[in-house]
Amino acid sequence: MLNFSRRRMETVGLPPGSLIHVGEKRMEKTTISLIDYDETHFETHEEISVEETFAFRDRENTTWIHIQGIHDPSVVEKIGTHYHIHPLVMEDVLNSDQRPKIDRYEDCLYVVMKSIRSRSELPEKTVSILVEQVSILLGPNFVISFQESDAPIFDPVKKRILNRMGRIRKLGNDYLAYALMDTIIDDYFLVLDDLEDEIEKYEENLILDRPRENPYGLYQLKRQILYARKAIYPVRDLVVRFQKTDLALVSESTAVYVRDLYDHVIQLIDIVETFREMSTSLLELYHTSISNRMNEVMKVLTIISTTFIPLSFITGLYGMNFKYMPELEREWGYPAVWGIILAVALTLLVFFKRKKWL
Amino acid sequence: MLNFSRRRMETVGLPPGSLIHVGEKRMEKTTISLIDYDETHFETHEEISVEETFAFRDRENTTWIHIQGIHDPSVVEKIGTHYHIHPLVMEDVLNSDQRPKIDRYEDCLYVVMKSIRSRSELPEKTVSILVEQVSILLGPNFVISFQESDAPIFDPVKKRILNRMGRIRKLGNDYLAYALMDTIIDDYFLVLDDLEDEIEKYEENLILDRPRENPYGLYQLKRQILYARKAIYPVRDLVVRFQKTDLALVSESTAVYVRDLYDHVIQLIDIVETFREMSTSLLELYHTSISNRMNEVMKVLTIISTTFIPLSFITGLYGMNFKYMPELEREWGYPAVWGIILAVALTLLVFFKRKKWL
Amino acid sequence: MLNFSRRRMETVGLPPGSLIHVGEKRMEKTTISLIDYDETHFETHEEISVEETFAFRDRENTTWIHIQGIHDPSVVEKIGTHYHIHPLVMEDVLNSDQRPKIDRYEDCLYVVMKSIRSRSELPEKTVSILVEQVSILLGPNFVISFQESDAPIFDPVKKRILNRMGRIRKLGNDYLAYALMDTIIDDYFLVLDDLEDEIEKYEENLILDRPRENPYGLYQLKRQILYARKAIYPVRDLVVRFQKTDLALVSESTAVYVRDLYDHVIQLIDIVETFREMSTSLLELYHTSISNRMNEVMKVLTIISTTFIPLSFITGLYGMNFKYMPELEREWGYPAVWGIILAVALTLLVFFKRKKWL
Amino acid sequence: MLNFSRRRMETVGLPPGSLIHVGEKRMEKTTISLIDYDETHFETHEEISVEETFAFRDRENTTWIHIQGIHDPSVVEKIGTHYHIHPLVMEDVLNSDQRPKIDRYEDCLYVVMKSIRSRSELPEKTVSILVEQVSILLGPNFVISFQESDAPIFDPVKKRILNRMGRIRKLGNDYLAYALMDTIIDDYFLVLDDLEDEIEKYEENLILDRPRENPYGLYQLKRQILYARKAIYPVRDLVVRFQKTDLALVSESTAVYVRDLYDHVIQLIDIVETFREMSTSLLELYHTSISNRMNEVMKVLTIISTTFIPLSFITGLYGMNFKYMPELEREWGYPAVWGIILAVALTLLVFFKRKKWL
Amino acid sequence: MLNFSRRRMETVGLPPGSLIHVGEKRMEKTTISLIDYDETHFETHEEISVEETFAFRDRENTTWIHIQGIHDPSVVEKIGTHYHIHPLVMEDVLNSDQRPKIDRYEDCLYVVMKSIRSRSELPEKTVSILVEQVSILLGPNFVISFQESDAPIFDPVKKRILNRMGRIRKLGNDYLAYALMDTIIDDYFLVLDDLEDEIEKYEENLILDRPRENPYGLYQLKRQILYARKAIYPVRDLVVRFQKTDLALVSESTAVYVRDLYDHVIQLIDIVETFREMSTSLLELYHTSISNRMNEVMKVLTIISTTFIPLSFITGLYGMNFKYMPELEREWGYPAVWGIILAVALTLLVFFKRKKWL
Repeated sequence: MLNFSRRRMETVGLPPGSLIHVGEKRMEKTTISLIDYDETHFETHEEISVEETFAFRDRENTTWIHIQGIHDPSVVEKIGTHYHIHPLVMEDVLNSDQRPKIDRYEDCLYVVMKSIRSRSELPEKTVSILVEQVSILLGPNFVISFQESDAPIFDPVKKRILNRMGRIRKLGNDYLAYALMDTIIDDYFLVLDDLEDEIEKYEENLILDRPRENPYGLYQLKRQILYARKAIYPVRDLVVRFQKTDLALVSESTAVYVRDLYDHVIQLIDIVETFREMSTSLLELYHTSISNRMNEVMKVLTIISTTFIPLSFITGLYGMNFKYMPELEREWGYPAVWGIILAVALTLLVFFKRKKWL
Repeated sequence: MLNFSRRRMETVGLPPGSLIHVGEKRMEKTTISLIDYDETHFETHEEISVEETFAFRDRENTTWIHIQGIHDPSVVEKIGTHYHIHPLVMEDVLNSDQRPKIDRYEDCLYVVMKSIRSRSELPEKTVSILVEQVSILLGPNFVISFQESDAPIFDPVKKRILNRMGRIRKLGNDYLAYALMDTIIDDYFLVLDDLEDEIEKYEENLILDRPRENPYGLYQLKRQILYARKAIYPVRDLVVRFQKTDLALVSESTAVYVRDLYDHVIQLIDIVETFREMSTSLLELYHTSISNRMNEVMKVLTIISTTFIPLSFITGLYGMNFKYMPELEREWGYPAVWGIILAVALTLLVFFKRKKWL
Repeated sequence: MLNFSRRRMETVGLPPGSLIHVGEKRMEKTTISLIDYDETHFETHEEISVEETFAFRDRENTTWIHIQGIHDPSVVEKIGTHYHIHPLVMEDVLNSDQRPKIDRYEDCLYVVMKSIRSRSELPEKTVSILVEQVSILLGPNFVISFQESDAPIFDPVKKRILNRMGRIRKLGNDYLAYALMDTIIDDYFLVLDDLEDEIEKYEENLILDRPRENPYGLYQLKRQILYARKAIYPVRDLVVRFQKTDLALVSESTAVYVRDLYDHVIQLIDIVETFREMSTSLLELYHTSISNRMNEVMKVLTIISTTFIPLSFITGLYGMNFKYMPELEREWGYPAVWGIILAVALTLLVFFKRKKWL
Repeated sequence: MLNFSRRRMETVGLPPGSLIHVGEKRMEKTTISLIDYDETHFETHEEISVEETFAFRDRENTTWIHIQGIHDPSVVEKIGTHYHIHPLVMEDVLNSDQRPKIDRYEDCLYVVMKSIRSRSELPEKTVSILVEQVSILLGPNFVISFQESDAPIFDPVKKRILNRMGRIRKLGNDYLAYALMDTIIDDYFLVLDDLEDEIEKYEENLILDRPRENPYGLYQLKRQILYARKAIYPVRDLVVRFQKTDLALVSESTAVYVRDLYDHVIQLIDIVETFREMSTSLLELYHTSISNRMNEVMKVLTIISTTFIPLSFITGLYGMNFKYMPELEREWGYPAVWGIILAVALTLLVFFKRKKWL
Repeated sequence: MLNFSRRRMETVGLPPGSLIHVGEKRMEKTTISLIDYDETHFETHEEISVEETFAFRDRENTTWIHIQGIHDPSVVEKIGTHYHIHPLVMEDVLNSDQRPKIDRYEDCLYVVMKSIRSRSELPEKTVSILVEQVSILLGPNFVISFQESDAPIFDPVKKRILNRMGRIRKLGNDYLAYALMDTIIDDYFLVLDDLEDEIEKYEENLILDRPRENPYGLYQLKRQILYARKAIYPVRDLVVRFQKTDLALVSESTAVYVRDLYDHVIQLIDIVETFREMSTSLLELYHTSISNRMNEVMKVLTIISTTFIPLSFITGLYGMNFKYMPELEREWGYPAVWGIILAVALTLLVFFKRKKWL
């Protein structure tokens, strides 16, 4: 099922800024988790209500509110109201059909990205890509992140905060936002890995000259690469604009890491482009392989037909029932026909050899 | 029927600024409707004459004059004269063959866009796209919009004004112009939806290996995507230039919404490009599918011919009427021929197996 | 006959600025016509000599000298000397193999454009494009235009001056230069119209599945589109640079109209690009159509061969002349063979049905 | 034989600035000629030694030293030392594998270009392109030019100086450098002419439906176009940078002519691009032509086979030797079979007519 | 085996700056060599320990530490700590999956490049490319270089230092960094040479019309070109940014040489692009060659079948056993059949001649 423009339909005709969920409902109940930390302390709360998060609003610490499930406009609306977020941002959060982008509002930064994961599908074990929208809101001393499903995509970040790995506890909420983006981008590499396996599998099959009969697989592969590309490409602009955000929101010590992010995105785009070229080459190879096999089939048919059709004509000739056929009466008639047959066959054999068909 | 350059012919050789209608007449009579509103009041008039609209000229309110049917130059000329509009604008309004663009004149902004809708055509239910030109004139305190037919494309905006939905009653005529453009762009998503359905239908057919015999459908699909692209692409530049218009015409509170418009257009262009790639991939898949089936047909032919042609030669051999053919006299002759036949058939079977043709 | 670089040969090795005609001679005798006008008066002279034009040199009026036939270097040289025109300009006027361009000299503007017209060629009525070079020289109070043949391409402008249509009599010689360029660009639309007819004709043939046997027509069509593109593309830069020319030569009131010119050129480029894509799609459609028909041919061959070759084997079997063939003696032999034949035929029929070949 | 990167090998691992000749030796002995001229006088010396040229170093006149054969590093080194030329320039002069470029050193300008000529090769008379590197050094009052072979590529310039044609004697050494570059660029037009002839020849063959059996010719043509492109493309940048060189080296009166050079290069690039598109179209046309002919071959085979195979079955049927075949005994048997044969043949004929195969 | 994104997996989920080796272990033990030199002295140490290198830290001379084998994080960490290198640089050094890039840190410059070498693989002797990552760190008075394996890629530079060849002993450590980069870039030419040989080999095979049966070789070739391109392309940006580095790190006398580097990279990119076009052309040529041979096969089949199938029908006709077949009784029957056979054969021969199939 394609999902490029389908869900837009639901908002067509509504005034901008209307809070309505656009997209598939991916989980039953919206769950909210919260981590509040600074260099020395931290506390973590799972499955709390929206209202409970408000208590952490005025602390100096970095507060990370992570919301899984965006199908409930009321939850999003309450957060928007409490944290003074622009209505257009709230509309975008609820619309799972955004293009990756970054928007700067007065005192907050709004980032939309696509988290992608790959899944193998039986029986051919073809890779298919799952896309999920993630929104990250970077405010004065908080980060609010929204995702569509309950996939544990941000667990590595949680683990790092809890175990004081790296610098995450030392640097502020801007570093947290960077860490979330970095985690999503890291996942892109995993997906490209799976696509690479898929490409290799096709390649091997074609080298060993056993293309699968149905060319749909290669078509599917090309489409998955297209999906990955669609998620990754806009991230380049996003990261560039994230780098250029003024220092009130993103500190200089974090900015160094964002440059690293940029390197990764460039590398990802390189890989995706290489994959596109490879999949095109594979298709060409597939076509050539079919042509080659067709050619071989035709050669066999031609050799056999061309050899035996003239011979059958000769036998047909002496199978005629004319009363007066002098050759039939002769004793040497039958051996002579055999001689002719062998001569014709030999001549054709030489001809085929010369044409390099044998 | 193509309509890229056809109608230009009618104006070739005329001096610039001549008021003449270029295009198909799409409705019988030009109808004019007017909505005059501010935050607290509004009045609406349907099917009024040009002259009746002039009364609203000097009010402080926002006045929206919507004209359906542009085939009558006299109506357009009267409006042009009364509202002091540049003759080149009036010429462009009457010429339904414009490229989407935005032009800035001294105290008004002139926007041309293409409204597109899709229609299913029997019996194949292929999608075909209807294109209609819409002109929007944003003046000091009025908006004048022109469309070619009486399709109710702006009804959602009317409804919003009447029902005070969103901010439309609070913000001025620049927001109204934005709302009209937004409505046209929203319709693009609906058209792309239909094209997506069409692509999916083809895809499904090709996966189940039942391509329709006539490849014209895919060609038609590619063309519809081309039409959609032609309508959507120039809108990007248009929106960018709309954003950069100085604040005398477009207020800052409206400008925030225009950024949203830009996001939508970028997303639309993304989708259209994806569709183009997909339709090309589909065509390749179609070709591969034909090649594959041809290959299969050839294999069947080759297997049958290659097996039976040599056997027929053998039977032909012993069908000859030579007087002296010793084998014919022997009692074991007939069973021996059967033995040869079975041996040859078996050998070929093994050969085909090895070639992986069976 | 191609004419991309052929005629350059004639000037290779000559020093720059040599006055020599490069190109085909398209008419017998160079003819000069002159129109001298201002808002209230005008006079027109046909077929005058070069020297007679000099009398109008010092008048305040706008003088338009139109020269048809550029094969006579002496005429061009006299004009160049009298009007103080740079030798390189004169060389370019005589060389009908220029790329469309605009050159700014101290007190004059030199514009080269290609006027294109289409011609239907029998018996296939394929469109072929005629290209003619037009040079326009905009000086202090005169316009000198050169064309290769005597085709009446500027008649609409003459008519407008004579009949005071539009603003042409009110605005100066810069507007005249604009009007000439506009007329050439208007003709492009006519040519694209004819190309569109041609594309439609091919399309219709392919939909009704009756491709003409010789694919050369489509190739020709692609080439004509290439020619049109070659004439139109450089005009965009030309118009942009014409717009940016300082106000000494092009007045502000004319500049507004040049913007209109730019819109037309952009639209033309859009159309040409669309045509290119369409012609490529048509070629693909043509290929697919051939493949499809080949497939159908092969299927018929395969069905007939595959059905009758085994049957012929059976009849061959019982056509053998062995003395001891027990079946031949039996009374049920012949009907039994018929039974086998029908059974085999039926089996193959079912097989073909299942393969969806019938 | 390709020659893209071959000769680089010889310098790999050497420190930059090492004077070593890279490339094929194209002539036996390096020959030096010298022309010294101003507006009123000139003297010319052929086949002089390096040391003899030094005498002209301090004159006010323009001195042009032309060196044919660059395989002798000692000659180049002496010149480099005497005229104070940067070692990197001398290294580049000796390396015939440079990309066309322009380098500005303190008081001299170093230009590398490729001179190309075409040669017809028997028996197919295919065009092949010869590439030769030309280096031009523009110093304070001298021009030193180097070429690989003794081909008389600069004879037109010599002739112009000797015969005082054009402005060459009036303008300085910058104009001489321009004239040399102009001469090389003029030769490009000749090569493109030959390529155009080649394209036309292929075209004509394909229209008359007699493609040469070996497609290698078209491939060769594409490659020659690639070679021409490789020589021409970088010249655009080169000319632009030549135009922007400060006035100490290139005077304003020469700069006007360089603009002309730019026009020529743009035109050349246009032509080469057109040729590339045409050669691609020709290849497509060639493919289509093969497909069409294959289709025709298949049709003939199918019509004949499909008609006679069923008929042969019928004759085979009544060629069987069963004792009890009632039809064989009947007097109407033979005519009846003829009737059936004619009926079957007629039916198939109608079938083929309807399929439009006949 | 592809290696685009595989190894990233190992770092996914780790915080940035973690020192972990990513990539294949290419040698057993990390070995360190050191050269310390100025214009008059030098000393060289092979296989020393990390700690031993620290003694050279404070000397005025240029110190070059070259480390082969990056699989041991402890070695890299010690160096990082002692020379005050940013943790992100150290992470990148250990990750052999970087894109070529240049990063500027406070007092050092970090360059990542890919060294490529080619290897011929039996039995087809196809070229395959080995890629190895090289990191170059340019600090105040030292250069530290890291490579993955013990391939002697920098031996030419060592030799130059030892033998005082060129300027390397006179210029500082920035020139050393330039020399290392130049050496890597020089190796690119060798690889392109081998690819060129490979292209030529394929070309020759196709001209002599003996394409290898398996098209996989061409596909492999295209991929090797892709690999080379991936290594070379990013170097252009890298060199440009190296040129623009401020003079504290790169002196002016070295900057002149970097311009030369840029010329080489542009030339390399040119060659790679040419190779890509050529490999695509080769594939087309291969396809055409297959089509042509298929066509020829079909023609032979068609000529033989079309000639003999009707003749076999005639013989079959007179092989029927009807009692009343008047022709069979006639004495002229058999010769008449021969006459018909010859007439039919002749007619078909003429037909084939006219179709130009013979």
